[in-house]
Amino acid sequence: MKYSPSIEQLIKSLQVLPGVGPRSAQRMAFHLLERKRKDGLQLAASISNAMDVIGHCKVCRNFAEEELCPICQSPKRMSKGAICVVETPADVAAIEQTAQFFGSYFVLMGHLSPLDGIGPGELHLDKLEQRFAQEEVAELILATNPTVEGEATAYYIADMAKRYQIKVSRIAHGVPLGGELDSVDGTTLSHSLIGRQQLD
Amino acid sequence: MKYSPSIEQLIKSLQVLPGVGPRSAQRMAFHLLERKRKDGLQLAASISNAMDVIGHCKVCRNFAEEELCPICQSPKRMSKGAICVVETPADVAAIEQTAQFFGSYFVLMGHLSPLDGIGPGELHLDKLEQRFAQEEVAELILATNPTVEGEATAYYIADMAKRYQIKVSRIAHGVPLGGELDSVDGTTLSHSLIGRQQLD
Ligand SMILES: [Zn+2]
Ligand SMILES: [Zn+2]
Repeated sequence: MKYSPSIEQLIKSLQVLPGVGPRSAQRMAFHLLERKRKDGLQLAASISNAMDVIGHCKVCRNFAEEELCPICQSPKRMSKGAICVVETPADVAAIEQTAQFFGSYFVLMGHLSPLDGIGPGELHLDKLEQRFAQEEVAELILATNPTVEGEATAYYIADMAKRYQIKVSRIAHGVPLGGELDSVDGTTLSHSLIGRQQLD
Repeated sequence: MKYSPSIEQLIKSLQVLPGVGPRSAQRMAFHLLERKRKDGLQLAASISNAMDVIGHCKVCRNFAEEELCPICQSPKRMSKGAICVVETPADVAAIEQTAQFFGSYFVLMGHLSPLDGIGPGELHLDKLEQRFAQEEVAELILATNPTVEGEATAYYIADMAKRYQIKVSRIAHGVPLGGELDSVDGTTLSHSLIGRQQLD
C-alpha cells in the first residue's frame, strides 16, 4: 500500500472531479494536507452543503437553493418578456457574462435524445409551455448548442412556441470573431455562409 | 449575482485546489450538481476525514493516520537498514513507484530555508538523528531536490550522518533517459558531466 487508507480514499474520491486523474488527485490531496487543512474542511463543508440544498428553480429550472433562482426573483429581468432557452447552467453563466441579455432563461439540463430516453418530459418542456400560456412572452431565443441534438431540440421548442404565436429566434452560428476562416471546421463555415446577412 | 449563494461558495472553495481557477471550479461544481451528487457527498466526507485524521508518522514524518505509516509498520522495510531522505510525501510516492528501494524513508516536509525561518528544528532533524543513534543504519540516501536549498539540506544531513559513521549517498542527477542533450538546461548538463562514471 502506497498511502494511508484515508489518503488513498481521498485521492480516489477527488477523481470524481472532471479533468482530475490519479496524478493531479495526488497533488491536490498532498496540497490540502500539507498547507490547507482549514481550507480543505471549508471545501468539504461547501460541497456537502451544495449537494444538499441546491435544487431547481420552479420557473426556469436553473440551479437554485430557494424556490426561485436569483434571476427569476428579479422583477426587472422577468418583466422583459424575453426567454432564452439553453441546455445547461454553464450556458446561463456564459450568456450572463456577455451582459447582452436582460430577460429570463429556461434551462433544459440537457437536450432531446430519444435513444438515451430523454424526451420532452425529461426536459420539463411542459413547464416551458406553461410559461408560454401564462407569461407575456415577447421573444423566445433558442440558444441550444449547434449540434444535431441541440438543433432538433430547438426545432421542437420552436414548433411549440408557434402554437402560442410567440416570436422565436435562434442565436447566430458562424466563424468566431478573431477566428480564421481556414481554422474553422466545414460545418461551421457552411452555417456562416447560410446565415449571411446583407450589409446596407 | 450569477449563481445561488451556495454555488458561489462552492465555486470559490474549489479554487483552493492547486491548478483550479474560476473556470474549472465552475465546471467542477456543475458537474457534481448535475450528475454526481452522491459522489460529491462522498468526496466531502473523504476530505474532511483526511483533514481530521491524518498526522505524521512518528518514525519517518510521512503522512499517517496511525502512529506509524504503512512503510514504517513493515518489519521487512525497516530491517533493510537503508533510509532515504526526501522533501515531500509526493517524493515517497514517486520512489515507491520505481520499486527500486526497499528500505524506509525520512520525509522532511520541506527543505532548509533560513530566510523563511525553516531550520533543522522545523524539519525535525532531531528525529532523524535519533534514528542514527538508535537504528542500525546501513546507508543513508539523500534524495532531496537538486535545487540550491535541496543541496544545502543534503549537505547538512550528510554532515550529521558522518558523525555516526553512516555511509551516505546522493541520488544521481543528469540528463533524463530518453531526453536529448540540447533540451536539457546547462546546470543539469554540468551535473551530468561532473557525475560521469567510468565504463569498464
Ligand atoms: Zn429561475
Ligand atoms: Zn513512517
